[in-house]
Amino acid sequence: MSSIANDVFYLGIDGGGSKCRASIADAGGVVLGEAVAGPANPLHGLERTLESIEQAASRALADSGRHDVTLRQLVAGVGLAGVNLPSLFRAVSAWRHPFAELYLTTDLHIACLGAHQRDDGAVIVAGTGSCGYVGVPGRECVLGGHGFPLGDKGSGAWMGLEAAKAVLLASDGLGPATQLEALLSAELGASGLVMVERLSGAKSSDYARLAPLVLRAAQAGDAAAEAIVREGAGYISALGRKLLDYGPARISMIGGLAEALRPWLTLQLSSRLSAPLGPPEAGALLYARRHHQTVQTQIQ
Amino acid sequence: MSSIANDVFYLGIDGGGSKCRASIADAGGVVLGEAVAGPANPLHGLERTLESIEQAASRALADSGRHDVTLRQLVAGVGLAGVNLPSLFRAVSAWRHPFAELYLTTDLHIACLGAHQRDDGAVIVAGTGSCGYVGVPGRECVLGGHGFPLGDKGSGAWMGLEAAKAVLLASDGLGPATQLEALLSAELGASGLVMVERLSGAKSSDYARLAPLVLRAAQAGDAAAEAIVREGAGYISALGRKLLDYGPARISMIGGLAEALRPWLTLQLSSRLSAPLGPPEAGALLYARRHHQTVQTQIQ
Repeated sequence: MSSIANDVFYLGIDGGGSKCRASIADAGGVVLGEAVAGPANPLHGLERTLESIEQAASRALADSGRHDVTLRQLVAGVGLAGVNLPSLFRAVSAWRHPFAELYLTTDLHIACLGAHQRDDGAVIVAGTGSCGYVGVPGRECVLGGHGFPLGDKGSGAWMGLEAAKAVLLASDGLGPATQLEALLSAELGASGLVMVERLSGAKSSDYARLAPLVLRAAQAGDAAAEAIVREGAGYISALGRKLLDYGPARISMIGGLAEALRPWLTLQLSSRLSAPLGPPEAGALLYARRHHQTVQTQIQ
Repeated sequence: MSSIANDVFYLGIDGGGSKCRASIADAGGVVLGEAVAGPANPLHGLERTLESIEQAASRALADSGRHDVTLRQLVAGVGLAGVNLPSLFRAVSAWRHPFAELYLTTDLHIACLGAHQRDDGAVIVAGTGSCGYVGVPGRECVLGGHGFPLGDKGSGAWMGLEAAKAVLLASDGLGPATQLEALLSAELGASGLVMVERLSGAKSSDYARLAPLVLRAAQAGDAAAEAIVREGAGYISALGRKLLDYGPARISMIGGLAEALRPWLTLQLSSRLSAPLGPPEAGALLYARRHHQTVQTQIQ
């Protein structure tokens, strides 16, 4: 390795709708510092996203204790939602960023790289939203992830919305009675029309907070809750099967609902799931290092 | 009838999310003028609602050609969405309105009064949203109408959203191929990710515009579209059955989808449906006249 390569530091950025995570590593891949900043989803605001990335990077640098290193020396790998849309990819790429280099890809791509520490793999994300990603030599594919309420079946937001629907059907006598009525009333501090008023304009994250109640009621054998979880898990299983059709070396499930959903998946999928080897930021670091080395090799 | 009663004019107001309709009638019930103004749904803005009511009333008065009559002489019957919530009922009631008297009730109540020209009846509303109302001596009940995307099953907004979901599932290979793909692409001028981008943040009225396409595809035998329409019509039929349990003298279906949905309803419901005798504004006029006469009788 040349002396130039030894002075390189890598920055891994995982931008999301609620926060932006940053990791800094040295040329050998040792993580030196980590930090978190505000939201970084360019679909919800480009300026805010770029601010959050820069802030997370500065904080991670401070956390590393390397006061001799500046942002200008960092080779950044950045994973963001929405940049699979060409317009957003161009908008972020046009940023006059403060780093040495910036390599941009999707949040799903770095999540997959992080989970498998290699290019050949697949991930299912099940948290507030849901989606699937597979990358194998020469091919990649994104499934689902169309957002709430249009898509994201099997996600926390979807489960919470379906639970609220089931409660309102039950209260009208148009659906089966369900334990979800008592659980949601207690959680929201409201029932009937007041619950409707409280949920008017609720965001995906608001609905996702109800998902643990749905899983709990389903485990306790409540028919309405079980129907919701089975339908959601059925979708996730079908999505996983599609990803496996690409023949990835490994597949992982990540996100806040990954553990809770696992028992409801088909054995065909659950028997194939491997624990993720690292978080998305680690994937972003790997992406930065790989692209930087490619550039170095081309120069030499 | 006393000479005082002959000088009375009635104002009927039907406030809705997209517009406010006003009718003016003389003491004998003859309609003298009609007009329309902007949105009047207090759930979406109280000030705007009150402005729309006053504007619609002034325009209807101008339309009547009775330049000798002022707003101050009108006895108003006002039907508004959301005033079944006690907080909104109080807020609208506190209005220092420009009329002689104002009698407030729900949009559903005046729709039912208008459709049956009497107190004993039921209505199913199927348009952008969906809900049911029944009023029989001593009892009234509202079913559904919880708003998009929480409720309003079988409505235009619900159908449009379900159609968009079906198209995205099909494009991921996770749902059956459907004619809705071509129909929605043509309507929205977009498909795939661009369609998702275009529908991000879409309102209930945006989705409701897709409903005629769903009904057309269902009539043509498209399986995915048929499943959506059958599920929606199944809900409306169940809602109608619940309303009929109250034993109303008549039942009508109103709203933009009423005609198109009718062939998909159970015979049990469709065989009971009667054509509405009048529009909601006529119900509001009736409500004003009845309350005013009650007050007169109490005074005499």
